[in-house]
Amino acid sequence: MHFKLAFIGFGTVGQGLSEILLEKKEMLAKKYDLEFSIVAISDMIKGSVYDKKGLDMSKILEIVKTGNKLDKYPSDVKGLSSIETIKQTNADIIIEVTYTDVKTGEPALTHIKTAFQMGKHVISTNKGPVVKEVKKLLEIAKTNNVYYGFEGVVLAGTPVINLAEYTLAGNNIRGFKGILNGTTNYILTRMEEGMSYGDALKKAQELGYAEADPTGDVEGLDALGKVVILTNVVLDKKIGWKDVKRKGITEISVDDINQAKKEGKRWKLIGSAQIQSDGSVKAKVWPVKLPLSDPLAGVNEAINALTFFTDELGPVTIVGPGAGRRETGFSLLIDLININRKFSNSK
Amino acid sequence: MHFKLAFIGFGTVGQGLSEILLEKKEMLAKKYDLEFSIVAISDMIKGSVYDKKGLDMSKILEIVKTGNKLDKYPSDVKGLSSIETIKQTNADIIIEVTYTDVKTGEPALTHIKTAFQMGKHVISTNKGPVVKEVKKLLEIAKTNNVYYGFEGVVLAGTPVINLAEYTLAGNNIRGFKGILNGTTNYILTRMEEGMSYGDALKKAQELGYAEADPTGDVEGLDALGKVVILTNVVLDKKIGWKDVKRKGITEISVDDINQAKKEGKRWKLIGSAQIQSDGSVKAKVWPVKLPLSDPLAGVNEAINALTFFTDELGPVTIVGPGAGRRETGFSLLIDLININRKFSNSK
Repeated sequence: MHFKLAFIGFGTVGQGLSEILLEKKEMLAKKYDLEFSIVAISDMIKGSVYDKKGLDMSKILEIVKTGNKLDKYPSDVKGLSSIETIKQTNADIIIEVTYTDVKTGEPALTHIKTAFQMGKHVISTNKGPVVKEVKKLLEIAKTNNVYYGFEGVVLAGTPVINLAEYTLAGNNIRGFKGILNGTTNYILTRMEEGMSYGDALKKAQELGYAEADPTGDVEGLDALGKVVILTNVVLDKKIGWKDVKRKGITEISVDDINQAKKEGKRWKLIGSAQIQSDGSVKAKVWPVKLPLSDPLAGVNEAINALTFFTDELGPVTIVGPGAGRRETGFSLLIDLININRKFSNSK
Repeated sequence: MHFKLAFIGFGTVGQGLSEILLEKKEMLAKKYDLEFSIVAISDMIKGSVYDKKGLDMSKILEIVKTGNKLDKYPSDVKGLSSIETIKQTNADIIIEVTYTDVKTGEPALTHIKTAFQMGKHVISTNKGPVVKEVKKLLEIAKTNNVYYGFEGVVLAGTPVINLAEYTLAGNNIRGFKGILNGTTNYILTRMEEGMSYGDALKKAQELGYAEADPTGDVEGLDALGKVVILTNVVLDKKIGWKDVKRKGITEISVDDINQAKKEGKRWKLIGSAQIQSDGSVKAKVWPVKLPLSDPLAGVNEAINALTFFTDELGPVTIVGPGAGRRETGFSLLIDLININRKFSNSK
């Protein structure tokens, strides 16, 4: 099937996907019968271009990488706003990769709803709309017979939503637990080797894993957001930020770690949620001393991992990379392949 | 979509799937819009029944479980052979779960080809045909616009083929390594705790993990079969049994294990294959001392695990249960859901 794509936002993730699409064009056509052209890009800072016949993406990437604005690109139509791009272009898939605002979900929320009303599919790595009202968005998408793909919003490099939806299809998933934050796992790994918390944090900051203000990671807030999203999407239970008990790793000492070692255990920051017998959900982000026999105990460095508890297969764990520019871009490709599978007529 | 199913063979795996289908009927209809009736069963020993309007499976399971033959069931048509069942009934999906013969692939091979010629989908846990000529079968299926699902042939409880095909779609998979045999992993886990090889094997036999003649497991033959299948199916490279270098775990001593412990490592029997730069494949089953930082090192007991090496996401590992009656039955359900996804018209 052939799709016409439009980017709303064109930062690192959008550029990452563009590169992957350029490199894999032939493979996607051959293996998945998936063909595409990129017809429009609208970015608040870089500007906006549209060509209904498709843009030359090598040229676009060159312009953007040399720090130029998109109006250097020779197309007839320029300067469309994001909403105009969604409404007035011939794109049938909108790639929403603007900045994230988890409080309001905007402007992504409006972009996505507008696309659905126009009968256009949306793929997005934007956490905001998913946190804000994923169930409502999925309903609107269904009503309009379009697809809403957001594989990249949790564990961008490890396709856990797809795993739950496709590979574990037919199971009832009653809960999950996981290492949802690479930065804290990196810090704990260094502490296992004897480094102090402070030194390990400094090292994580040097490597770009942790921000200058590391609160979001080390206090478990980032992991908490992922617990909320996974609970809403995979467990199909509505919970909010305040429903998750939370404790970070700042109080874990090298002594605690050595003590755990003696017991044959290892500290990990675990995000988890479990459906209770009354249908409610218990969710938390908390440091846990895992026995080494737990698949999550062996997951070190800035790696992510998630165990789903299923009725048919018992615990199933996936271990994969955390978020990166290319990995997050790639998560959008997974959604694109899903749209192609779902909306191509196989018969 | 509504499917009419016929079982060719009705042993533990077929019965396992039937139970799951009965229990999950409502969920499958609601969540996947997947409806079905089981119209025919043909088993060499238990006999054969057909009712174009659908059999009462609770009654069938009751008859079989009390050791009776299927002719106790009140249907008009009885005694159809497997080929007649495939050709003459109104079934549109054939569930091939007869016994496995890896040398000839028969009788499953003939069943599957006949079904394809009749324009019927096949789902099967039968290793024989996959080992024998999976690529040819996939081609015939494609020509006839039908589906050949065989998720259950490797790591029955852990849907690795589906993972490669769907969740990791868009990646080039250049190789894999895994703990493909639960029995040997169980033995190595006990030896880690100080048990001798002989005692650990005895314990595995008591628990039903290992056969009276344990050669297939401990010499790595079972794992080798899985390496061949995964190489053919996931890496898309044709190799045979003789192309895989093999060594089992019988020579590993408690001393070796203690030595590895001192080095911060753990012995595992690893099945692996890697596409080389000249396009050839290096495949083997061999005991490997893994560093504890490897996700596979933490996989203990009779659990299976597989790491795929991908171009976009790097190594991605899945950890899940080994084969069991219910798990293997369930693998057929995954294939069934895939057929429903692929052949339902979403628009």
